[in-house]
Amino acid sequence: MTTPFLSRTETLSLLSLTIACLCIIANTFQGDGEPLIASLAFSGIAFSSTYAMIVWLGPTFMKAGLKGKDMSKVHKKEIPETMGAVCAVVYLLIIIIFIPFPFYKDIVAATSGGGNRDVLKDVEIVQTGRFLHRFPHNKLASYLSAILSLQSVSILGIGDDLFDIRWRHKFFIPAFASIPILIVYFVDFGVTSIVLPKPLQPLFGMRLFDLGPLYYVYMAAIAIFCPNSINILAGINGIEVSQCLVIAFLLVFNDILYLLVPYPHPATDSHLFSLYMLLPFIGVSLALWQHNWFPARVFVGDTYCYFAGMVFAVVGILGHFSKTLLLLFIPQIFNFIYSSPQLFRLIPCPRHRLPRFNARTGFLEPSVTEWKEAPHPLVNWGLKMLDRVRLVRVVVDKEGNVVESSNLTILNLWLVWWGPRREDRLAMEIVGLQVVCGLVGLFVRHRLALLVFDADNLTV
Amino acid sequence: MTTPFLSRTETLSLLSLTIACLCIIANTFQGDGEPLIASLAFSGIAFSSTYAMIVWLGPTFMKAGLKGKDMSKVHKKEIPETMGAVCAVVYLLIIIIFIPFPFYKDIVAATSGGGNRDVLKDVEIVQTGRFLHRFPHNKLASYLSAILSLQSVSILGIGDDLFDIRWRHKFFIPAFASIPILIVYFVDFGVTSIVLPKPLQPLFGMRLFDLGPLYYVYMAAIAIFCPNSINILAGINGIEVSQCLVIAFLLVFNDILYLLVPYPHPATDSHLFSLYMLLPFIGVSLALWQHNWFPARVFVGDTYCYFAGMVFAVVGILGHFSKTLLLLFIPQIFNFIYSSPQLFRLIPCPRHRLPRFNARTGFLEPSVTEWKEAPHPLVNWGLKMLDRVRLVRVVVDKEGNVVESSNLTILNLWLVWWGPRREDRLAMEIVGLQVVCGLVGLFVRHRLALLVFDADNLTV
Repeated sequence: MTTPFLSRTETLSLLSLTIACLCIIANTFQGDGEPLIASLAFSGIAFSSTYAMIVWLGPTFMKAGLKGKDMSKVHKKEIPETMGAVCAVVYLLIIIIFIPFPFYKDIVAATSGGGNRDVLKDVEIVQTGRFLHRFPHNKLASYLSAILSLQSVSILGIGDDLFDIRWRHKFFIPAFASIPILIVYFVDFGVTSIVLPKPLQPLFGMRLFDLGPLYYVYMAAIAIFCPNSINILAGINGIEVSQCLVIAFLLVFNDILYLLVPYPHPATDSHLFSLYMLLPFIGVSLALWQHNWFPARVFVGDTYCYFAGMVFAVVGILGHFSKTLLLLFIPQIFNFIYSSPQLFRLIPCPRHRLPRFNARTGFLEPSVTEWKEAPHPLVNWGLKMLDRVRLVRVVVDKEGNVVESSNLTILNLWLVWWGPRREDRLAMEIVGLQVVCGLVGLFVRHRLALLVFDADNLTV
Repeated sequence: MTTPFLSRTETLSLLSLTIACLCIIANTFQGDGEPLIASLAFSGIAFSSTYAMIVWLGPTFMKAGLKGKDMSKVHKKEIPETMGAVCAVVYLLIIIIFIPFPFYKDIVAATSGGGNRDVLKDVEIVQTGRFLHRFPHNKLASYLSAILSLQSVSILGIGDDLFDIRWRHKFFIPAFASIPILIVYFVDFGVTSIVLPKPLQPLFGMRLFDLGPLYYVYMAAIAIFCPNSINILAGINGIEVSQCLVIAFLLVFNDILYLLVPYPHPATDSHLFSLYMLLPFIGVSLALWQHNWFPARVFVGDTYCYFAGMVFAVVGILGHFSKTLLLLFIPQIFNFIYSSPQLFRLIPCPRHRLPRFNARTGFLEPSVTEWKEAPHPLVNWGLKMLDRVRLVRVVVDKEGNVVESSNLTILNLWLVWWGPRREDRLAMEIVGLQVVCGLVGLFVRHRLALLVFDADNLTV
């Protein structure tokens, strides 16, 4: 197999983008240095290098056994799998190289020099002025812990793609990967109280409620939920990357709202941190999207889903807007709850639940679970009730036993509701639904939150 | 293939070791908390979990294609490869969980609570007393950057083992992985001057010499050298792990010297950092050694060599004893220089240079490079000169042209010098040589350094 190459147009576009971005970065060294501009430029470089590497590394991945068949096509040819690992590696490299930009050295420590930094001298701390968009130096540890968590989830995700870890084991991969942020949070901050909604304040007699160790459980739950919920809303070309791009763009939109209010605003730093993490993520994801959208030329692998989910979790946790984050996960939350009867084996769960491809029409149809033995009477009744409210489609035999039920994923449900359709149309519609839900969520967050909280922190 | 299991003795020993270690860790929560004891206990857990996981995961690795043939055996059966990845993952998890122990929260920041850590209040810094063996909180960033570099090298090492990256590319893997420590060093410390040896001081008219950006080149060079030099001193059962264990134990010995002098000593913190990094490394390496020593049941893979080399590089760089570190790499430095004619293709370099196995005797013999065409006259003359001083063995044809020369590795040279021997004996002798060189190196470091430097920092 020869190394595939970029077309002349692709080469020229990527090259000019890269050069432009490099110039912008070089320019930020003049004057104050503007990390946000630099971050945008780095994201451009992230895009072009990911785009090129996905093309170049395809055959290498297939040779190493990282390949899969696209089940929803007439010609089921093998294409490279686990391309999310390329995204992750490029992203991590970019985000590491970016460190000096926001965390400009603003603490000058007097040392004895000579490498002997350990000589016990009084350290003279010179706190230079803070500039807009420049981080306080003491946030470096939390930024590093975020990178650590993302690297951990990448290593474990690659392991999953290589070894095909069982579902009940891989559920906890993000939990392991979240350990670095939890630990550094514990060592470095340790704030574990939350603001109570107004109606509850008289009840508890306080404004702040200290969750104590439960706060860490809450953070771990976010870290477990985000990657896994993306991982189970999957199975058709482009859906994994598209949903992540929607969430990322909505988060960026939310972040920008905070940058428009006058500085210094309490939450500016958190949302800058969020932007620095999300912009390069959008860069690598757009490149992957180009190759993964219908008809897919590469698959993303579990690595991408875990990695993307962890980016969101890290941003939400360290930026202290995990509740806002969850508002952008409404379709994923619905899909998770809707899937749970199968995930927890109340209803049989086949290895793959992706919609069934009808080669005659070229359309996707809802895939089904066949009941080899009659379901438990309660499950039987429940399924028939859900069928009546059109939340599932069942086939019943003469005795009234369910013999076939559609698989419980939002993709199948959509097909049950609106009929068979082509793969890309299904993906577009789900993504459209997600955009609407997300915008409504953000509106609720900023306009209606005042009803239950003292203040929307955007307007304080 | 069934999952292999541990023998009853193994299960009982590992289980009791783990329980004992857990008790010790629980105990350190009482009173001050003693990170060094906790680190030892964590290393015990690292050992037992690595030992068990290597056994359990063997078939999984082989199924994923991570396997190799042992060329130096009569029966060349396939065994799992890349088991260094297991070491790396266990090590990273342990070292992350260990973070709270040395970096106990000793800065209490006054915050508004409620997750709004960004409210601009004056931060009241409460510096509690420092205890022996407890790190200053501001070293957290450098510790985190060390973990970042180790994670990076693991990801890239796994990539190398999967995709068989070409030699001239993989040479730079550690360079990429060293970026996090270099960047955090730049952001957080930025000390780039070195102490000049006494004879040079009048020449430059100063005691300290600022290397500037060259200091970063120097650090990167250390990070590139350590992993690669271990990676090329390889090829027989157990040699990779054994040499790393020797270096690790000698470094620990050196660290302990610094703990015995009265505290607060300038270098105590650096050497504690080194111990915290090295003890769990010894734990995982000993477990791997058990499976990799002659006759090997698993291979370590490039991942292990890169990972181990990076542990040493990180410890040396962040602990500011990179010159001492290099004294422990004498056999590797020799092997590197000795190999360079082949590495830089002055002399043809076959894919593998490991000693040749003689199935009749069961002994290893020096492997050779066959010259398909007559070497350049200069190379020809050089090889014959080296043959005369017994640094290489050549076969010459009637016209005086070299037609065959032994491969330039220390392992082949040892076999040229002392004759064929069994694989494990060769490994033991090389390891013995390394121990002697290392001890001499440390002696020179602490006793003779006074001749060229103002002071051995152990006795200041």
